[in-house]
Amino acid sequence: MNTHELIAELREQNPTKIVLLVADGLGGLPLEPGGKTELETAKTPNLDRLATEGVTGLSIPVLPGITPGSGPGHLGLFGYDPLQYRIGRGILEALGINFNVTQKDVAIRGNFCTLDAQGKITDRRAGRPSTERCQAMVEKMRQVRIPNIEVFVEPVKEHRFVVVFRGEGLGDKVNDTDPQAVGVAPLLAQGSDTPSQKTAQVANEFVKQVGEILKNDAPTNGVTLRGFACYPNIQTMQQVYGLRCAAIAVYPMYKGLARLVGMDIIDAGDTLEGQTQKLKELWNQYDFFFLHYKYTDSTGEDGNFAKKVAEIERLDAALPAITSNKPDVLIVTGDHSTPSKMKSHSWHPVPTLIHAATARTDGVTEFSESACLRGGLGQFEAKYLMLLAMAHAGRFGKYGA
Amino acid sequence: MNTHELIAELREQNPTKIVLLVADGLGGLPLEPGGKTELETAKTPNLDRLATEGVTGLSIPVLPGITPGSGPGHLGLFGYDPLQYRIGRGILEALGINFNVTQKDVAIRGNFCTLDAQGKITDRRAGRPSTERCQAMVEKMRQVRIPNIEVFVEPVKEHRFVVVFRGEGLGDKVNDTDPQAVGVAPLLAQGSDTPSQKTAQVANEFVKQVGEILKNDAPTNGVTLRGFACYPNIQTMQQVYGLRCAAIAVYPMYKGLARLVGMDIIDAGDTLEGQTQKLKELWNQYDFFFLHYKYTDSTGEDGNFAKKVAEIERLDAALPAITSNKPDVLIVTGDHSTPSKMKSHSWHPVPTLIHAATARTDGVTEFSESACLRGGLGQFEAKYLMLLAMAHAGRFGKYGA
Repeated sequence: MNTHELIAELREQNPTKIVLLVADGLGGLPLEPGGKTELETAKTPNLDRLATEGVTGLSIPVLPGITPGSGPGHLGLFGYDPLQYRIGRGILEALGINFNVTQKDVAIRGNFCTLDAQGKITDRRAGRPSTERCQAMVEKMRQVRIPNIEVFVEPVKEHRFVVVFRGEGLGDKVNDTDPQAVGVAPLLAQGSDTPSQKTAQVANEFVKQVGEILKNDAPTNGVTLRGFACYPNIQTMQQVYGLRCAAIAVYPMYKGLARLVGMDIIDAGDTLEGQTQKLKELWNQYDFFFLHYKYTDSTGEDGNFAKKVAEIERLDAALPAITSNKPDVLIVTGDHSTPSKMKSHSWHPVPTLIHAATARTDGVTEFSESACLRGGLGQFEAKYLMLLAMAHAGRFGKYGA
Repeated sequence: MNTHELIAELREQNPTKIVLLVADGLGGLPLEPGGKTELETAKTPNLDRLATEGVTGLSIPVLPGITPGSGPGHLGLFGYDPLQYRIGRGILEALGINFNVTQKDVAIRGNFCTLDAQGKITDRRAGRPSTERCQAMVEKMRQVRIPNIEVFVEPVKEHRFVVVFRGEGLGDKVNDTDPQAVGVAPLLAQGSDTPSQKTAQVANEFVKQVGEILKNDAPTNGVTLRGFACYPNIQTMQQVYGLRCAAIAVYPMYKGLARLVGMDIIDAGDTLEGQTQKLKELWNQYDFFFLHYKYTDSTGEDGNFAKKVAEIERLDAALPAITSNKPDVLIVTGDHSTPSKMKSHSWHPVPTLIHAATARTDGVTEFSESACLRGGLGQFEAKYLMLLAMAHAGRFGKYGA
């Protein structure tokens, strides 16, 4: 029996409220051996109180040593095994620009490139055009017409854009057309099964028409396509858990990931205050709230230790606006670590706390990597977090008699 | 390779003795955050000494957040993955009254109900009859005769009884006939495959005859049937581990679960002293002893914190009568937690100790939830406990060269 079948068997309805607060890239590293991490450096009286009254541990995003992107990182937290549910690059790229992908879509990441007179690539990123130029080129590409297929082209940033083909029977087993080299022509798209052959045909026709449209627009006179991806076949969180779920996120990528698992996407502006305000307003309308906080990750990516500390403290200061709603279960965690020392996502387990009346307290009085290491949740795979959330909310019956 | 195949490959015979002492529902919760659990409150000098000399940890009965019933809780401890091996409700009910189920049986839980003149249910529990009346009605139902089928009816308590059909080719994919509502007639039984259709036919004939027999016995003039279950296809522990196994339990349910995995069931009266006495008497006749202690669970279910503490202390006092036999491996654990704060089974990991000359001691000097959290076994799924038992007993060869 897989976990979702088990959940379907055990879940019960009750009026409890669950809040999942994801501080993106929360975990960190000390700059020197034996030093303090960002979270250990930050003054976090509210998180420390929650850790004291609740139970703590460390979440392993995928498997020991595996660093996830945002997609698998969040799928795990939502209770979808990130090794089983895979979200293709094209879909993630589309979600990241808030494009509303559907079951009929194949989404693809596109790059502008520069082609010489023989059609060979001289620059794989077209000299990194401005985003404005990217937008102008995308506008032109929207002239492409392909029979029985709706074609969407959306700008991302610099040389990057998204293409979505919408139609019946399109597969995604198609090779990247980027040859990862200069001095050669882009590859032809080829599908490895019948639906994917159809997609490849559409993609080659798209590239051909684009070549015509952009022929006088060097250095942005060519395109390569990567990460062909269909919309994944995935149950919604309401189907899995019987929870009415709301996502209160600021960045499109996280709204998109939440939409992927069927959450209602709440427009909360672009501040933490806007998010907690929405939480309060919608408190009675949902059972489960996903709050996403981006800046613990972006400051880590920037390698800015002090700024990450400050962002953690800002998040801590916002906690009373969450706890004042009296959630039955409040979880604080991250989708992965982003140590500013590494300037990147990492595999290191992520500090996690569950605050609930049914939590077995563990003597931990501080929310940090080293304290959570002694926590009652131990080290656990992120995909089990929602089981714990449901259990602490009293939303599971007994398994077997 | 599944775990049982691995065990079959590795297991070796030797004269060691393993004792598995299960304190039902052992784990608990503090009444207030940061307070002590029942086990932490109890004075347990013997358990503390075993924890000091052995290795400790916390057992996760099924998966994080999953609360098991007694069936899956014990199957896990016996080394049968509780998500793979499922024991149906009817079989558990039959085991619970010490009915000796066989491979040819379909066991079913029955309820008396009250029917009006139109055959519609007016009370789904027949006004909760006395257990004496239940016994009298069951006696009458034993008049039922069905060709080629042996029919057993056994009283349980109040409105509850057990029916067992014994015959060839009976399936258990049959719906409950309890409509879960009043004002409607009981449902007909229907099978979803050929063997289950046969069972459904038998069940409908049973209900028809019972209707005739009890027609003047309102309010106990009707029955509904639930939880049709065949005897599970399961290897014995002797087959899996090569151990001669004895179960020294008091309550029928646990004797039944032990019988299910092929243990010899020892009659030890109904006291802990009787159990340890039998252990001593049979010491040379078996390799593995399962001792079950119920009262840590029942006091937790009652919400009686102080009584649970007292029952833990009583168990502790009985330990010298176990250790005096000098088992090579002594395990103390529970099948799940039953915090008196929750008055129910729970998912919280269960304190566990393994006392053996081969244990790697871990600095833990106390047997409690918080101490076991720092133990050398870490947090582990209960289904792995028997691997550890076999290993500590020197009963496994090396895997691979």
